[in-house]
Amino acid sequence: MGTSDVSRIIVDGHGGDRAPHVVIDALAEILSLQRQVEFGICGQPEVLRSALQSKGLEGIVKIIPAEDVIDMCDAPALALRRKKQSSMHVAARAVRDGDWDAMVSAGNTGALMAISKLILKTLPGIDRPALASMIPATDGGTFFLDIGANVDCSSEHLVQFAVMGSCYLQAAEGVASPRIGLLNIGSEDVKGTDVIKVAATRLKESDLNFIGNVEGTDLFGDQVDVVVCDGFVGNVSLKTMEGVAALMLRTVKEELTSSWVAKMGAMLSGKALKRVKNALHPSEHNGAPLLGLNGIVVKSHGSADAHAYACAIDVAIREVEAGLIERTLDTMNQMSDAV
Amino acid sequence: MGTSDVSRIIVDGHGGDRAPHVVIDALAEILSLQRQVEFGICGQPEVLRSALQSKGLEGIVKIIPAEDVIDMCDAPALALRRKKQSSMHVAARAVRDGDWDAMVSAGNTGALMAISKLILKTLPGIDRPALASMIPATDGGTFFLDIGANVDCSSEHLVQFAVMGSCYLQAAEGVASPRIGLLNIGSEDVKGTDVIKVAATRLKESDLNFIGNVEGTDLFGDQVDVVVCDGFVGNVSLKTMEGVAALMLRTVKEELTSSWVAKMGAMLSGKALKRVKNALHPSEHNGAPLLGLNGIVVKSHGSADAHAYACAIDVAIREVEAGLIERTLDTMNQMSDAV
Repeated sequence: MGTSDVSRIIVDGHGGDRAPHVVIDALAEILSLQRQVEFGICGQPEVLRSALQSKGLEGIVKIIPAEDVIDMCDAPALALRRKKQSSMHVAARAVRDGDWDAMVSAGNTGALMAISKLILKTLPGIDRPALASMIPATDGGTFFLDIGANVDCSSEHLVQFAVMGSCYLQAAEGVASPRIGLLNIGSEDVKGTDVIKVAATRLKESDLNFIGNVEGTDLFGDQVDVVVCDGFVGNVSLKTMEGVAALMLRTVKEELTSSWVAKMGAMLSGKALKRVKNALHPSEHNGAPLLGLNGIVVKSHGSADAHAYACAIDVAIREVEAGLIERTLDTMNQMSDAV
Repeated sequence: MGTSDVSRIIVDGHGGDRAPHVVIDALAEILSLQRQVEFGICGQPEVLRSALQSKGLEGIVKIIPAEDVIDMCDAPALALRRKKQSSMHVAARAVRDGDWDAMVSAGNTGALMAISKLILKTLPGIDRPALASMIPATDGGTFFLDIGANVDCSSEHLVQFAVMGSCYLQAAEGVASPRIGLLNIGSEDVKGTDVIKVAATRLKESDLNFIGNVEGTDLFGDQVDVVVCDGFVGNVSLKTMEGVAALMLRTVKEELTSSWVAKMGAMLSGKALKRVKNALHPSEHNGAPLLGLNGIVVKSHGSADAHAYACAIDVAIREVEAGLIERTLDTMNQMSDAV
């Protein structure tokens, strides 16, 4: 946070399916809650000004001009090199320069990761940033990383992800001693790849609350708070979740419209079924933090509605308020002192 | 198949949670359908005899004596070396010797894989057997392998899995030209590990119907018939499915009992909801073939009920009837001729 107790958040005015309107509606939602927050929006001034005007937010949300826009289909490497005046670049530089405490974008994930890494750099002792997500579980949620930023990972990377995930849950969710598990194909020590076995040995020696190997089913239970894996496995697992959830909801819908009795039942259960849908396609869980960077960056889902986007902004505010960067640095220092 | 048109299936009388009773009930179910099949059951004769008697199957199902039993908690390597008189060993040797056409077991998966590989060996040109499963999808099912037998895989192994999966669907399900996808974290050619990129190049050059990279969500759609990955990723994905499905069903149950209106609705929709549950925890999909072996082996889920176990036996019968081994050998020969 800056010198005051106000969190200063810059949002990308151009990322996502329905920008900038969804983004500005999200700002309005948070501002209506009287939180200690100041907003900037980065992008093409004319577009943003008229959108802010239409919501009565002109003069309340500051416009940070950026001429260029990164598209969802731009290759990350090209977006990184060729679109240096994009809203994503400009917002990241503004965070680096300390003008803003955190940035939120619903834009191209690969480009956001590449640009954030180039401009903000990783924290000392951390080789690579990771992308993380809170997924629904019996006890509210499991924090899951890496979900796609790093295809090949060493044991050391997995250990760093564990530190990043643990610090995040302490800072942003107030979990005192997050239970950390390594995603594996069995709970026994002999299971899995050599990379995972070495990471497990390192984590056992650390001060982290490492509970050992966990399996895919454990992501949704209440035995573990942070689940760590490489970005290939994490991405496949996350997309498997999305696929199963979509298939189940489709099946429920088909079955509940298959006869008039089922239809009537579904009408009566309508509210309950809607809550099921919300619990499992949870806009409340929107906001995937990019961790390990020397700056706070949160990715919103591209198709987020205003409330979901506001949840992503809320993740950023909580990271700022809790001093996530300082906390991660402290833990990394303790880990290296212990070696 | 032997000299006649009758499929000769040997089942493991001791694997699974409720053996041998569930196993014998499954045999009774299949025998009641008047199929061209002859059954043997392998295990401790006294136990099996009294169980067969109580179901009126004594003299109809042949007992193949085996003194030892492999437990679910036995380490595969120890079970392999120390329990050579187990029902699993004896059944595998009986298949190797041509006394029976296929074996089915609900026992320890790791032990079954190790014993089958040692006794039956892999087919020429195939380095490692794989474990496969049919998973529910929009169009009925997607055939998914490897789901846990091989943690580290080379490009060549993935190509072999593709052949094995394609031949299985042709033989056992009658799919003329199965569409094969490589599980990856994006559909573009540049995505994923080097192992996957090389496998994709090899598959493009082959005669297989390779459609390219697919993602976790695609497992449940209708664009692909066979999805190939290494056993670590496959196992995590499969267990993620189980976890999401269990969480969703739990959430549905909680919500539908949360008020009297919801309860009444759930009562009316009861049959439809039961069909949802069956579609997603599908005993109809029980029966995971071990592929790439010089012999037919099918794994039943350890907690399978009689009908589910009968489905696993049905998988074995279809593999025998369709000549899966010969078909796989032919395809492997064509692949090596083409190189």
